[in-house]
Amino acid sequence: NEVAKLLELKAQLSCENGDASNEVQKFILKTPKGTRDFSPQQMAIRESVFQKIVAVFKRHGAETIDTPIFELKDVLTGKYGEDSKLIYDLKDQGGEILSLRYDLTVPFARYLAMNKITNIKRYHIAKVYRRDNPSIARGRYREFYQCDFDIAGTYDLMIPDAECVRVVQEILESLDLGPFVIKLNHRLLLDGMFEACGVPPENFRSICSAVDKLDKSPWEEVRKEMVEEKGLPGDVADKIGHYVRMSGKTELVEKLLDDPNLTKIRSAVEGLEAMKLLLHYCELLGVNKKVVFDLSLARGLDYYTGVIYEAVLQGDSQEDGATSVGSIAGGGRYDNLVGMFDAKHKQVPCVGVSIGIERIFAVIEAKLFAAQNKVRTTEIEVFVASAQKNLLDHRMKLCKELWDEGFKVEQSYKKNPKLLAQLQHCEEAGIPLAVIIGESEIQKGVVKLREVTTRNEVEVPKDRLGDEIRKRLHFNMNGST
Amino acid sequence: NEVAKLLELKAQLSCENGDASNEVQKFILKTPKGTRDFSPQQMAIRESVFQKIVAVFKRHGAETIDTPIFELKDVLTGKYGEDSKLIYDLKDQGGEILSLRYDLTVPFARYLAMNKITNIKRYHIAKVYRRDNPSIARGRYREFYQCDFDIAGTYDLMIPDAECVRVVQEILESLDLGPFVIKLNHRLLLDGMFEACGVPPENFRSICSAVDKLDKSPWEEVRKEMVEEKGLPGDVADKIGHYVRMSGKTELVEKLLDDPNLTKIRSAVEGLEAMKLLLHYCELLGVNKKVVFDLSLARGLDYYTGVIYEAVLQGDSQEDGATSVGSIAGGGRYDNLVGMFDAKHKQVPCVGVSIGIERIFAVIEAKLFAAQNKVRTTEIEVFVASAQKNLLDHRMKLCKELWDEGFKVEQSYKKNPKLLAQLQHCEEAGIPLAVIIGESEIQKGVVKLREVTTRNEVEVPKDRLGDEIRKRLHFNMNGST
Repeated sequence: NEVAKLLELKAQLSCENGDASNEVQKFILKTPKGTRDFSPQQMAIRESVFQKIVAVFKRHGAETIDTPIFELKDVLTGKYGEDSKLIYDLKDQGGEILSLRYDLTVPFARYLAMNKITNIKRYHIAKVYRRDNPSIARGRYREFYQCDFDIAGTYDLMIPDAECVRVVQEILESLDLGPFVIKLNHRLLLDGMFEACGVPPENFRSICSAVDKLDKSPWEEVRKEMVEEKGLPGDVADKIGHYVRMSGKTELVEKLLDDPNLTKIRSAVEGLEAMKLLLHYCELLGVNKKVVFDLSLARGLDYYTGVIYEAVLQGDSQEDGATSVGSIAGGGRYDNLVGMFDAKHKQVPCVGVSIGIERIFAVIEAKLFAAQNKVRTTEIEVFVASAQKNLLDHRMKLCKELWDEGFKVEQSYKKNPKLLAQLQHCEEAGIPLAVIIGESEIQKGVVKLREVTTRNEVEVPKDRLGDEIRKRLHFNMNGST
Repeated sequence: NEVAKLLELKAQLSCENGDASNEVQKFILKTPKGTRDFSPQQMAIRESVFQKIVAVFKRHGAETIDTPIFELKDVLTGKYGEDSKLIYDLKDQGGEILSLRYDLTVPFARYLAMNKITNIKRYHIAKVYRRDNPSIARGRYREFYQCDFDIAGTYDLMIPDAECVRVVQEILESLDLGPFVIKLNHRLLLDGMFEACGVPPENFRSICSAVDKLDKSPWEEVRKEMVEEKGLPGDVADKIGHYVRMSGKTELVEKLLDDPNLTKIRSAVEGLEAMKLLLHYCELLGVNKKVVFDLSLARGLDYYTGVIYEAVLQGDSQEDGATSVGSIAGGGRYDNLVGMFDAKHKQVPCVGVSIGIERIFAVIEAKLFAAQNKVRTTEIEVFVASAQKNLLDHRMKLCKELWDEGFKVEQSYKKNPKLLAQLQHCEEAGIPLAVIIGESEIQKGVVKLREVTTRNEVEVPKDRLGDEIRKRLHFNMNGST
């Protein structure tokens, strides 16, 4: 009968929709696909990298904000072009339809529009989510950190844009990642160049994404994509090929400003004039040695409207293609994004850069691993040890006194730990000092103070212990490495 | 016909399943229900609070880890009792069934089991998610931070447990939140007490959650819940009422160890002996003044197996019931949770505390708001200003030089900003120093250095500028407030 058939269909449909509650699922102990835990060692590295980056942001007067990890789905809709399919949606559990944030830029624009903020310089370091095919080997995950610095406000041409370049240079230098170059280009120039070559305006964005692949693919492949997949006439592609293989500095801008094919296109001239100004400011800010004006730089995202940036590590990538890191920072100007969230489409011009923090971690972790460097994961200064049994109460009192003085202190959580085990722990954990108590020391009102690396021990009166520890920590900080 | 009907049904079903792509939805600019953005001002407060808390964790030798924001749904299943309905699920987009983490403890246990870690002292500060009915007024959100410190490992009785109490005391004192008390109790004692009173074992957990409400509700109401909702005989409830109104210190432990009703129950004696030891260690660690042994403390979560803690702010909550903050830290021992993730049920005993960071923020924000204190959201030390037009290039060069020296510097992003506007910005943003350049200064090779608060200006040769700035910043740091 019909009712039975309908019920069967309904059951079938709800199954297709992923209702797995009836299945008996074997339980596997893992993190979700494309995600990972971070160990104390990895976190120690991350913390020190974040500290250096934040120091640069703060040197440039940036504030920080935070936004929820998920947004109303509508906030994200229509901002990422083809990549929208990579957005994680939350299950509809009755209520709003939500999605995990895909980047920090769209939530930032939503924040500005919602709070009617017209100027701010902010950084934001937080996790974003993409249902991409994770390539763990290449350091691509579904959950990863972004680290963004943006300047919003109506200002004069290229002044905040140039500061973003300076910020990228300061960060990459402070992280000591080896030689790098910051590529610059301009969306108006790209559009003007496409127009000059004869690309129909409706194809600008799709040809732009093809150009974007030039950092990974040779021109022949990109040309093939333009002609065969995107239906561009061969001679138009060749004209594009002529331009996108150019890179240089101010002299290239001057040369292109003499190119009659470009100078007849208004946006091309506008883009070139802007590049000229940007390169001038870069010189004033001391970043001219690291920048290169590169016409092949396109950047995939739809929302860029002006300058675009990309920083690339150079170093040993040629010899060792497999571990090539490539782009480690990128960004640009996006003057229309905030307006998409405003009822009256009021614009707030923005420019910013995103530091490719996950790639930076991968590079640094690999370096430390290669150097077999051990990273300390705690900051303990003093370990309180006992030489005999039944001294737990004395250890605890000593810990209390040292914590009260602000020292970073730990002890064994065993009642009667072996002295050797305690001292071994100090050596393994890189703890600089150990205070050792025994019956005789307690009776004399002294403790033994041991320098863990040298294994030197001195007897110190208990009331002078704090001073003696401070003296040695101070020497350690200033005297070694 | 039948096919048409089936298609219609299918469409209807997919609608019920929340596929809203066909609906025209009016777009509202907001964050999801129960979530919020954090402004630069709020973030500055959060940062300073986190710093103080992390300093305490590090003083006790804790490492930090991080886990993904979502877990396989199976990892969370069966860990939260009734509260499981509050878990956020992700949409099934083909692949694993995922849920947002509900707390940091279950992911921590999963991490230990998965990596076969048998001892670690770690802290974790991160966001968790609960589809609760948000009570914004009471500071309850659907997305909020947790801030956990846990010690995992097989150690001797109550030693790490006592250190957790010390950590809570150090944190609450360093945050200067006013008077507080740390309540202590023991799950074994609670169970033993329930047994002694005649509660059937299968009702222990549900009676425990009723007792847990005693911090918010009077005994009469809790008794009513026990008798009317949970079917406990009235005389059994009254016996419980006798105990749960007791609180004290070691003398109360001694008194209860003389109570023949309790001493015949093994777990009660075990719990009391443990409490006695804990209170002794608390005295050694200097936390005895803040702790109280409180038999009404129950804590809702199922997984506690030993000591349980809860810190409560006292202060003005009596006079001003509406803004009463109540519990601001809590935790306990959970020896069986890690074993739930291990194929061979290998246990890793754990004890830890969670700092109620959101409540702490609410208290501090309210205090600052009441005092009309302005929180600086940037750390800019020097503002580079120009007194006339057309000096942008000079400003930029000066900024470069000061950034190169490591100063925190900003300038206007306008080509020709008005001097008054620039100085006003310095005063509003609390920037201590302004460097002012004009035509005449440039010719003389000097700059004007202005102290923003006093408005004093001195002329400084350009090559001495760095030193003069350092001198004044140093004085500002050490000389004021």
